[in-house]
Amino acid sequence: MNFSHPAGGPLGGGGAMERCRRLLEPALREAVSVLHPWGARMAAFALGWSDADGRPYQGDGGKGVRPAIAMLSAEAVGARAESALPAAVAVELVHAFSLAHDDIIDHDERRRHREALWKAYGVGPALLTGDALLALAVQQLAGAPEAMKFLSAALVELVHGQSADMAFENRPWRGPKEVTIGEYTEMAAGKTGSLLGAAAAAGVALGGGTPEIADRMWTVGRDLGVAFQIADDMLGIWGDPGVTGKPVHNDLRRDKKTLPVLAALATDSPAARELSAVLSAGVTDEESVRQAARLVEQAGGRTAAQAMADRYVSAALEALDECLPNATDLRAVCAGLVNRTH
Amino acid sequence: MNFSHPAGGPLGGGGAMERCRRLLEPALREAVSVLHPWGARMAAFALGWSDADGRPYQGDGGKGVRPAIAMLSAEAVGARAESALPAAVAVELVHAFSLAHDDIIDHDERRRHREALWKAYGVGPALLTGDALLALAVQQLAGAPEAMKFLSAALVELVHGQSADMAFENRPWRGPKEVTIGEYTEMAAGKTGSLLGAAAAAGVALGGGTPEIADRMWTVGRDLGVAFQIADDMLGIWGDPGVTGKPVHNDLRRDKKTLPVLAALATDSPAARELSAVLSAGVTDEESVRQAARLVEQAGGRTAAQAMADRYVSAALEALDECLPNATDLRAVCAGLVNRTH
Repeated sequence: MNFSHPAGGPLGGGGAMERCRRLLEPALREAVSVLHPWGARMAAFALGWSDADGRPYQGDGGKGVRPAIAMLSAEAVGARAESALPAAVAVELVHAFSLAHDDIIDHDERRRHREALWKAYGVGPALLTGDALLALAVQQLAGAPEAMKFLSAALVELVHGQSADMAFENRPWRGPKEVTIGEYTEMAAGKTGSLLGAAAAAGVALGGGTPEIADRMWTVGRDLGVAFQIADDMLGIWGDPGVTGKPVHNDLRRDKKTLPVLAALATDSPAARELSAVLSAGVTDEESVRQAARLVEQAGGRTAAQAMADRYVSAALEALDECLPNATDLRAVCAGLVNRTH
Repeated sequence: MNFSHPAGGPLGGGGAMERCRRLLEPALREAVSVLHPWGARMAAFALGWSDADGRPYQGDGGKGVRPAIAMLSAEAVGARAESALPAAVAVELVHAFSLAHDDIIDHDERRRHREALWKAYGVGPALLTGDALLALAVQQLAGAPEAMKFLSAALVELVHGQSADMAFENRPWRGPKEVTIGEYTEMAAGKTGSLLGAAAAAGVALGGGTPEIADRMWTVGRDLGVAFQIADDMLGIWGDPGVTGKPVHNDLRRDKKTLPVLAALATDSPAARELSAVLSAGVTDEESVRQAARLVEQAGGRTAAQAMADRYVSAALEALDECLPNATDLRAVCAGLVNRTH
């Protein structure tokens, strides 16, 4: 794994990713085509297919990693990738739904180098577009209860994780009510991991794999999600906004309980105590934000975050190797998931 | 039917309604109990169980007509009401989800004599609570593909109808781009009817009824929904805010294409032409709102709306009598649905 060099290279499993993307796109376009014309236009923007005026857009419409995991999981149990297309479409739609709603909730104005959906169309229309994407996702798997079980569990966990993340913002950095790393991990497994778990497990289910393999892949996905969320936290502090497409340091400004900061504070070193004081005073101006980021690194928060992400990826890949030993493409995509720059 | 006297009496099938409510509440509370504590508190407010501070609230938490339809539909095909509980819980949760999101979209500040959820807790938290309610709804039926087929179709139609309703607001009252009564009907069948249809059809499916009966009950629900939406439109113009719990005339102020107004304009009478002029000038002050409401009635919009609602209820009841001739309780609830004051 190349996670210590986040600028190191493209997502793992490049050929397989491309193959999955080609299978996904027509199915995804067909799913969205039933929407109200007005909703379809906003959905096309949300999915990166068009700009805010409806003109074709050649941008970064997302990497399609969740659908790839669904399809490659089906292949890994001996089925054709196509058999998992309903799950692939569903998880990509849920992902787009969650981004549309999260940007409203977090007041994030930028997404993938463009305006967020709500900035482009307004809160009400963006909210409704998210609902539409979710409704279509559910419809994809309505007739496949084994796969639906995982999708619906992921939806419940996703919202639970997002609620926990929001509730964390109002909790203090230090003291009896501080957010623990255990609580963070549970939040990340829900908010970020559950949909990866649903992708893998629903792919296995649609590919005819056993319920035992599906359940284990659910856990693999959740562990990957924890690593992915930590990597995202790190990009939020040390990432290049020109690459990530999002402003840097937003998380620090709004008291988000990200892993690098929690890990830094947990060291209780002099830098950690200084960090605690800076954070408690409220990080608002550019100078205090930079100072906080520097102290997180000095206190060892960056190293600890990276080590924890590495541990979760290793655990996920070990479990994957045990339950699906010949899943080369799937393994490459999972291993590459956290080795990302944006 | 007593629709011409909207203050005439309680919802039909009172005893059956009460019986269904007693079955529903523990199941609904259990479903919501898995939410994040913070989300559970907002959900309890949304469902009318507590006030904004979390204290028990003895108010109008909704009439529970959708869950009653689900359970009585199961009884009508010879099953116990309990067999349809997952559908009953699911449709009540979807209903609460749609109210939470609709109030954000429509900037409605009041709901059931209280603040709307977003006014009490903020847009982001209310949005997320809606998502949580929807996720729980989907989970209820994840293992029941026959019922899930109807729930997911209803979700897609509900969002489609809501999109159409929003898009209508930006269309002119008269001219080649005016909203037709056909378009209105399709919107209402989706926005309001689909969830009633899903309640009935999923109840039939969980009760072991045939797919043919389920499909026909889906149509019955959609027709009832058109009538219900028209009745709601009428309450929005001539209802008593002290009874409905919502301000009157909001629809007129925001150019909502409601049936009484569309029907009034379609008469092309002198009153209709005057109404058209008033609406085109923009209805903002209290005087022009009252004038518009008066002209709708003068042009025959109130009578026409009532006649159309009556027709849709009659068609629904006829279809119900044909396919489930002995469903006394279900029939009473369906017949009483449009005979409402709030």
